[in-house]
Amino acid sequence: MNTGLKLRMHEKIKETLLEDITYKDIGVEGIFSEDSQASADLLAKEDGVICGLEVFLESFKILDKKAKADFSVNDGDSIKKGDKIGTVYCNAQAMLSAERTGLNFLQRMSGIATMTRKMVELLEGTKINLTHKRKTASGLRVFDKYSVFVGGGKNHRYNLSDMAMLKDNHISAAGGIIKAVYSVRKNSSFTTKIEVEAETIEQVYEALESGCDIIMLDNMSFEEIKKSTKIIDKKAIVEVSGNISMENLKEYRDLDIDIISCGALTHSVKALDISLKNMKML
Amino acid sequence: MNTGLKLRMHEKIKETLLEDITYKDIGVEGIFSEDSQASADLLAKEDGVICGLEVFLESFKILDKKAKADFSVNDGDSIKKGDKIGTVYCNAQAMLSAERTGLNFLQRMSGIATMTRKMVELLEGTKINLTHKRKTASGLRVFDKYSVFVGGGKNHRYNLSDMAMLKDNHISAAGGIIKAVYSVRKNSSFTTKIEVEAETIEQVYEALESGCDIIMLDNMSFEEIKKSTKIIDKKAIVEVSGNISMENLKEYRDLDIDIISCGALTHSVKALDISLKNMKML
Amino acid sequence: MNTGLKLRMHEKIKETLLEDITYKDIGVEGIFSEDSQASADLLAKEDGVICGLEVFLESFKILDKKAKADFSVNDGDSIKKGDKIGTVYCNAQAMLSAERTGLNFLQRMSGIATMTRKMVELLEGTKINLTHKRKTASGLRVFDKYSVFVGGGKNHRYNLSDMAMLKDNHISAAGGIIKAVYSVRKNSSFTTKIEVEAETIEQVYEALESGCDIIMLDNMSFEEIKKSTKIIDKKAIVEVSGNISMENLKEYRDLDIDIISCGALTHSVKALDISLKNMKML
Amino acid sequence: MNTGLKLRMHEKIKETLLEDITYKDIGVEGIFSEDSQASADLLAKEDGVICGLEVFLESFKILDKKAKADFSVNDGDSIKKGDKIGTVYCNAQAMLSAERTGLNFLQRMSGIATMTRKMVELLEGTKINLTHKRKTASGLRVFDKYSVFVGGGKNHRYNLSDMAMLKDNHISAAGGIIKAVYSVRKNSSFTTKIEVEAETIEQVYEALESGCDIIMLDNMSFEEIKKSTKIIDKKAIVEVSGNISMENLKEYRDLDIDIISCGALTHSVKALDISLKNMKML
Amino acid sequence: MNTGLKLRMHEKIKETLLEDITYKDIGVEGIFSEDSQASADLLAKEDGVICGLEVFLESFKILDKKAKADFSVNDGDSIKKGDKIGTVYCNAQAMLSAERTGLNFLQRMSGIATMTRKMVELLEGTKINLTHKRKTASGLRVFDKYSVFVGGGKNHRYNLSDMAMLKDNHISAAGGIIKAVYSVRKNSSFTTKIEVEAETIEQVYEALESGCDIIMLDNMSFEEIKKSTKIIDKKAIVEVSGNISMENLKEYRDLDIDIISCGALTHSVKALDISLKNMKML
Amino acid sequence: MNTGLKLRMHEKIKETLLEDITYKDIGVEGIFSEDSQASADLLAKEDGVICGLEVFLESFKILDKKAKADFSVNDGDSIKKGDKIGTVYCNAQAMLSAERTGLNFLQRMSGIATMTRKMVELLEGTKINLTHKRKTASGLRVFDKYSVFVGGGKNHRYNLSDMAMLKDNHISAAGGIIKAVYSVRKNSSFTTKIEVEAETIEQVYEALESGCDIIMLDNMSFEEIKKSTKIIDKKAIVEVSGNISMENLKEYRDLDIDIISCGALTHSVKALDISLKNMKML
Repeated sequence: MNTGLKLRMHEKIKETLLEDITYKDIGVEGIFSEDSQASADLLAKEDGVICGLEVFLESFKILDKKAKADFSVNDGDSIKKGDKIGTVYCNAQAMLSAERTGLNFLQRMSGIATMTRKMVELLEGTKINLTHKRKTASGLRVFDKYSVFVGGGKNHRYNLSDMAMLKDNHISAAGGIIKAVYSVRKNSSFTTKIEVEAETIEQVYEALESGCDIIMLDNMSFEEIKKSTKIIDKKAIVEVSGNISMENLKEYRDLDIDIISCGALTHSVKALDISLKNMKML
Repeated sequence: MNTGLKLRMHEKIKETLLEDITYKDIGVEGIFSEDSQASADLLAKEDGVICGLEVFLESFKILDKKAKADFSVNDGDSIKKGDKIGTVYCNAQAMLSAERTGLNFLQRMSGIATMTRKMVELLEGTKINLTHKRKTASGLRVFDKYSVFVGGGKNHRYNLSDMAMLKDNHISAAGGIIKAVYSVRKNSSFTTKIEVEAETIEQVYEALESGCDIIMLDNMSFEEIKKSTKIIDKKAIVEVSGNISMENLKEYRDLDIDIISCGALTHSVKALDISLKNMKML
Repeated sequence: MNTGLKLRMHEKIKETLLEDITYKDIGVEGIFSEDSQASADLLAKEDGVICGLEVFLESFKILDKKAKADFSVNDGDSIKKGDKIGTVYCNAQAMLSAERTGLNFLQRMSGIATMTRKMVELLEGTKINLTHKRKTASGLRVFDKYSVFVGGGKNHRYNLSDMAMLKDNHISAAGGIIKAVYSVRKNSSFTTKIEVEAETIEQVYEALESGCDIIMLDNMSFEEIKKSTKIIDKKAIVEVSGNISMENLKEYRDLDIDIISCGALTHSVKALDISLKNMKML
Repeated sequence: MNTGLKLRMHEKIKETLLEDITYKDIGVEGIFSEDSQASADLLAKEDGVICGLEVFLESFKILDKKAKADFSVNDGDSIKKGDKIGTVYCNAQAMLSAERTGLNFLQRMSGIATMTRKMVELLEGTKINLTHKRKTASGLRVFDKYSVFVGGGKNHRYNLSDMAMLKDNHISAAGGIIKAVYSVRKNSSFTTKIEVEAETIEQVYEALESGCDIIMLDNMSFEEIKKSTKIIDKKAIVEVSGNISMENLKEYRDLDIDIISCGALTHSVKALDISLKNMKML
Repeated sequence: MNTGLKLRMHEKIKETLLEDITYKDIGVEGIFSEDSQASADLLAKEDGVICGLEVFLESFKILDKKAKADFSVNDGDSIKKGDKIGTVYCNAQAMLSAERTGLNFLQRMSGIATMTRKMVELLEGTKINLTHKRKTASGLRVFDKYSVFVGGGKNHRYNLSDMAMLKDNHISAAGGIIKAVYSVRKNSSFTTKIEVEAETIEQVYEALESGCDIIMLDNMSFEEIKKSTKIIDKKAIVEVSGNISMENLKEYRDLDIDIISCGALTHSVKALDISLKNMKML
Repeated sequence: MNTGLKLRMHEKIKETLLEDITYKDIGVEGIFSEDSQASADLLAKEDGVICGLEVFLESFKILDKKAKADFSVNDGDSIKKGDKIGTVYCNAQAMLSAERTGLNFLQRMSGIATMTRKMVELLEGTKINLTHKRKTASGLRVFDKYSVFVGGGKNHRYNLSDMAMLKDNHISAAGGIIKAVYSVRKNSSFTTKIEVEAETIEQVYEALESGCDIIMLDNMSFEEIKKSTKIIDKKAIVEVSGNISMENLKEYRDLDIDIISCGALTHSVKALDISLKNMKML
């Protein structure tokens, strides 16, 4: 897990636990003594790619510093329905109080990694990379981006501050692509790239002339994409975007492009079915 | 919008804007002057139920206190592909800097409301209510729950503190349903209800005897559900759960049950396609 | 101590320590070396019920991770004037810098538990439970509620979100009790109870008809209470409220009621006198 | 209201509102429309000193920016049972959702101011000032200190960082009062005063010799106090402390001392009974 | 002012005001009535570049929402000793309570802008841009970077997440520059640039071959720099770093380089002398 | 290190790390495995006084709980260019990700301590103490004040709440020094001192008569200072302020004053050059 996620996850998990426990977990008090210990198995109920194991474990650690887990897989590994992913050991109250929080993270993260992996596999054998957009769940961008990366995807820009993506509104306000790129280049750091969204062949020519680093071909037909990549001729990174899904992704395999971006990877996540079972008192 | 969401949304939206803007929005500086004003239209690109309009507007207000919007619909209204949902007026830089944040909220919330509405419609004409589970996105529970409610769903318990849901682990640790309910009743407030998860007819009998308020029939066959509801005979609220989806929901219409709960409503959200277009400088 | 309090106490204690130490504790620097260790005894200076021992200890732990304590009692135990409650071992600077913070929590929490216990004892032998109201100190609700519980009281609703209490204003705005209960039932979760405040016999009849879960008899005479409980006849939980104090509590013993609520338990707390003495350098 | 309280109150009130509203106020939704307006009267149900009016109003403003109030009194004014203190105008939902939060602050603050005023009056005609200790409710020190000040009391040091109070533990560790004062003087700012706690006449002599600014006579008999003040002879400020209460305060009137400190002013607060009544829809 | 600074400044200024006001501003109470209004002039006491005017004004606004200012200059304008920069109008207590906070920001920001401007002027007529490093004051990076930009400098990368700067440690761990660049390229976004630090001519060759975007010539002699720029021949952006100061900057004018970076711009700031004078009661 | 700094440093360092790592440190991933360990030496590149070693180490601990360091010096010790100050041992990724954050604190703090020490040495042999003002970097006051103290300086008041400093504006609004001191004395705690700023001999007379604790001679000539100290004759602490710098400090040696305050100690800090070198993989 990367340094940034490590640095941020504690606070976000704690926020999530606090969403789930206003005062006390009224289901555990009176049933489990405060110091009883338990174990429980983490089971895959669906095939997929596991992602978020440290986040999952941290959920229990916040309630019981001594919580531990034996995982038989690592983030990014494939899991099959029925697989035992690992075993969690912790205080019995903590086990039940943190279960949902831990699983909510793990299921979303694994869901993203799984969908990413499936799409990446459809591009296997080509040089094309798959990436997400900024359409992440509010407050969860580090988690969502990490999950795409674990699934085998490439990360797009983090946010509005680390790359400029110039779209129709920027371009028309600036008076054309060339002027827009010039303005941004002048005002931004020499360390940041500039990407231009092109919807027509004409705009591709103009983007190329502007000296931008990346050209995004937005909602173009295959014919237009082919024409564009010829024109660009590797003088800029080529990203293709617009209604790309599991269903039509294969059709893009033969294009001479660098990146395909897909917002659904993070805005329409299907949680991977994983559960915590076989709780035993120790 | 309810008081609780009003009270919480500002901080959460600000957190989301801060995810998206570390230092500055490098795409707008140099192109748009700091005081230029703009308008833009909010357009439905898909049929669905709109939800989150005030949250959407607040995203712009955080960057421009004077941001305003004319919406032609209210949260909960149906929208059709191509509909103009409203127009936003604000500072041009703010328009572009807050666009993604605002849309990320609106698309997720409307996605939840839309799926809820579709499922609720499948139950129309019955007394059965649809509800979510605690499988919400981390940090977004108030938003997710509100969206289910706007879509026509009933809210389930908020979290571990406002109702006890006794599952297999609680029950076996307590030594049976009756003991579990007794323990929780003794330790919790007289203002909270207790729900028991029953997987067998035998457990239904025991749950009923325990005096719990709600019985959840978990993963039962239709035959078992029918048998159970007869046994319960309105002496407890009946919730049915387990792999219920858009596909099989209709089959539950004729059951004498009160609640159907569906985790996918919030854990596997499909964002509703909505976009901000036609930006005009004023 | 419950999971929720565990999850929240660290931040609140830290906030309190920060109230007490803006820059440095100018009394300890220069007198105690940074690594000197000490012990000190926790002494009861008054009879009562101890509550908050883990919160007390955590105050020292925040300044010295290795702080430890041997307590001879547990939360909820009775203590007598002169009793040694335990011994704290920690860094000498931490001992003095955290002393007031730790005691402020412990004295308030024990004060609440003590008053609760005294009132609960006055009801001993009856089925009547004592409870608090929402009149807790700002920011300290989890602590205050826990203390009432430790003292032997029953917890009332946590807040406005987990039960509806319908009072005169709600009722008149809705057009009567029945309409008010109907509206709230429709808009709230099936997991939440509804309580109605009744000030007259007529309202008791209406509340009963409304199907609410709890009826609060507010400021009624003993005659009215008796009449009401007969009417209600166990079809709803009966709460009695209004100027109930240590002085008059015994008079309520013979009533057929479930709950007596007393705001003073948390809004007018008398701190229990406890002090940290006999500090010794180790 | 002072600048510091103004600067801090918003966050603290918001924290308190969030304690009271996890998700939504389920009692108001469905009964009051989102934009209905109301007024309500703030009534004294007990004699006392009002304190915290701006804090009270801010509670409503957080939920409804346009909330207003007409108060007929100011912080520090005496109120009589039955007095109408003012009228609040705001959104009807906000009125009910913020009522308890606002009153919890107002009742505690007025309770402190009232008790302070009563004790101060017992010292009227003397030069003796009354003050509190650091025994404030966790997280509420600015509110508690302000309330004592409004009640006519003098503020003691804010915390461990703005004055040194040397007690038995400091003194024995340093090897006597003179060494302790010397050490602290050397390590602390020339802008901070040093107070020494003296329990015997001998210690008074030593404290005087140490050049400390304030001498606290702790738990001394009247005879000892008199002797001490003669010895001190105005070369240091004289504070008297130890089990001083409303009952015995008058006996201190004739002493030649500057300050009497009383921890109960803030650690054992009796809330002043104030309520919000006569809510009217506008 | 950019969107990011606008979004972040309120919290940071509030934090700073809270550093300065623990409880109340004891100097103003009793002297200025709570509602007295005042004006005061902002005067330059030294020549320089003004920067941070909105931040300065916001300091007063936090204590008095109606605070206003007439500024005769804008961020980035030159000011001369004795110039009146503007006039602030606000509550008299707020004027004095926020003065230091406002000036602390303004003086640091103007100090940075002033030093940047002076150094930028020494490069005038060349194509070389001046930039800072990550050596900013803790918690103030957005302010420091903005100030360099206002002074005419170029911003370097924001932090470790938006560009990779590969130094000796990265390179030796990876087994050479080419391997290091390859690894980072593979694991990072296609939107981020990679910079390599070269200390020898050999490393310049290797860096060039690695395909990195920017080469930093670290602590090289003028001869080495010249040799390096010939080798690089515009195939990468060239940054020069290492003990560059006001004194020796001119010597770099004739080099064929793109960027000179100077850590002292932010790590050794000389505050610009500005004061708030002529306070008048209105 | 004092208790207050210990209590506050963790949050502030974390804030600083978060400034530097938005998502992940893209330079380390792919190069250093997640569990590789390293050591690195902390080297002085300039003569000075070291300050902030625990803060420096804590920066690494936040990313790697097991981070350790062997320091050969303590805060306040003199270091010489080329000295090895110590060795840090921690996770290799953490070493590089936290390096800049740790050094930014250490260099600023040591810079302040170094300048303080140099100035203090110029006053050696006199009774005059050197102190800072409130001109600290925003959010860093505890660090800045601690650094002055470590350098051998005396701390001035912490902020507006723990001492009153009456300047021209306070004085003219109050109607003179005597009235101002009287008002503040009446409204503030008996534990706080009052300082008066005097610019003329006449004001010195008035300040003395007012009974203030400290008189600051502001921007006076040597003649005036001498005259003033004779008048004051040790009846108040004497602080001298106004454009005092390393250059002219010696001239003040013979004055009969207590305190010299110098804003530049914290507002115009020159970072001490310290670096982390010789990283070795373990």
